[in-house]
Amino acid sequence: MIPKKSPAVVLSSGGLDSTTVMAIAKNEGYAVYSLSFSYGQRHSHELAAAARVAANLGAVDHFIIQIDLARIGGSALTDKTIAVPKSVKAPMSASRIPITYVPARNTIFLSYALSWAEVLKAYDIFIGVNAIDYSGYPDCRPEYLLAFEKMANLATRAGVEGRTPIRIRAPLVKLSKAQIIQQGMALGIDYSITHSCYDPSMEGLACGHCDSCLLRKKGFKEAGVADPTRYQQRTR
Amino acid sequence: MIPKKSPAVVLSSGGLDSTTVMAIAKNEGYAVYSLSFSYGQRHSHELAAAARVAANLGAVDHFIIQIDLARIGGSALTDKTIAVPKSVKAPMSASRIPITYVPARNTIFLSYALSWAEVLKAYDIFIGVNAIDYSGYPDCRPEYLLAFEKMANLATRAGVEGRTPIRIRAPLVKLSKAQIIQQGMALGIDYSITHSCYDPSMEGLACGHCDSCLLRKKGFKEAGVADPTRYQQRTR
Repeated sequence: MIPKKSPAVVLSSGGLDSTTVMAIAKNEGYAVYSLSFSYGQRHSHELAAAARVAANLGAVDHFIIQIDLARIGGSALTDKTIAVPKSVKAPMSASRIPITYVPARNTIFLSYALSWAEVLKAYDIFIGVNAIDYSGYPDCRPEYLLAFEKMANLATRAGVEGRTPIRIRAPLVKLSKAQIIQQGMALGIDYSITHSCYDPSMEGLACGHCDSCLLRKKGFKEAGVADPTRYQQRTR
Repeated sequence: MIPKKSPAVVLSSGGLDSTTVMAIAKNEGYAVYSLSFSYGQRHSHELAAAARVAANLGAVDHFIIQIDLARIGGSALTDKTIAVPKSVKAPMSASRIPITYVPARNTIFLSYALSWAEVLKAYDIFIGVNAIDYSGYPDCRPEYLLAFEKMANLATRAGVEGRTPIRIRAPLVKLSKAQIIQQGMALGIDYSITHSCYDPSMEGLACGHCDSCLLRKKGFKEAGVADPTRYQQRTR
């Protein structure tokens, strides 16, 4: 049993996975501090979704940090000169990293979460990464998360003063997308308020063809749940 | 022998330590990419010093990332409601972390450096941390740096594609402040362009009494080098 309303920082993109994680943290009794990032991403509709999700799930605070990854570049998600690929293939394996990989993104996100957690005296940081139905990003693997956790406990007061250790909680890491959706449905999530697409229309409608859309579609299908996503009309 | 002009990312605060590290990286033959942070710190004179240092040492690029630590708070260096302590005592031991500690700061800095390094195809990240004459920050210890390095190699393409591993280089970690200054003088550094004070005057003059000033003063004295720092007149 955790004490009632211990604080926890939850990384939120407004997408399906992180929303499920927030519902899990809430269900475990944590006071949720939602943390999102504005990083020059094409999919800024994410941020609107993250705000909806934080309000919907009763987060104590929702904090959006502006970070400048556009100047660093190197990804189709932050560099406007690189096109987001459209694919009907299966997601790439771990040996082929797609161009939508943002260099060291999860490390930057978790570092900010660690800083906020230390100030809040929170010992749990929740992240919605997934190593099964994922897109081949190195920073979604369990061994990466364990290494981050170890580093985090050396980086902070916890490591010096012998406090409660910090835990990086990734409750979805070994679940399929369908299992994630089933768990979220059991917790009462309304997935229509979430946003996953890497390349939405101006109005925020999902493209239906990027890796993220394909994974999400497949998940709803396999879970036997009606897909509530609003897709653009396919014109080609 | 490293190939001529391999890129390296060097974290620069415009202070004595990181400037010495940049000179070391340059002396080893690296093309230096200087990375500084504007984080709502009281000591924004650091940034002017960092720009002087990058120009003086011939950095290929000097990148200042805006980061929002003021909203996170928790430190005298980022929270205007907490006073910077003045002390004539020796620096605190590792079991007492001073209020100038910024939660997870070096982790955030190194995470951005990692992201930039991955895009630049740089495998060396230099940081001027020091575990001898330091201020008791947990994220200055060798075991922390090793844990970050291990995590970094799992976080990035290096870890998946078997590329050259990323190294976190901390050449000052076991040197005293006096030894750092002696090494820097041998490399021709003009320390008058650097800035270390946590609580300078509006004009950028050092206070002479904060932990950072005390360590710096002591270093010059022990190195037998004239201190080029411009201090405020002591009025009390």
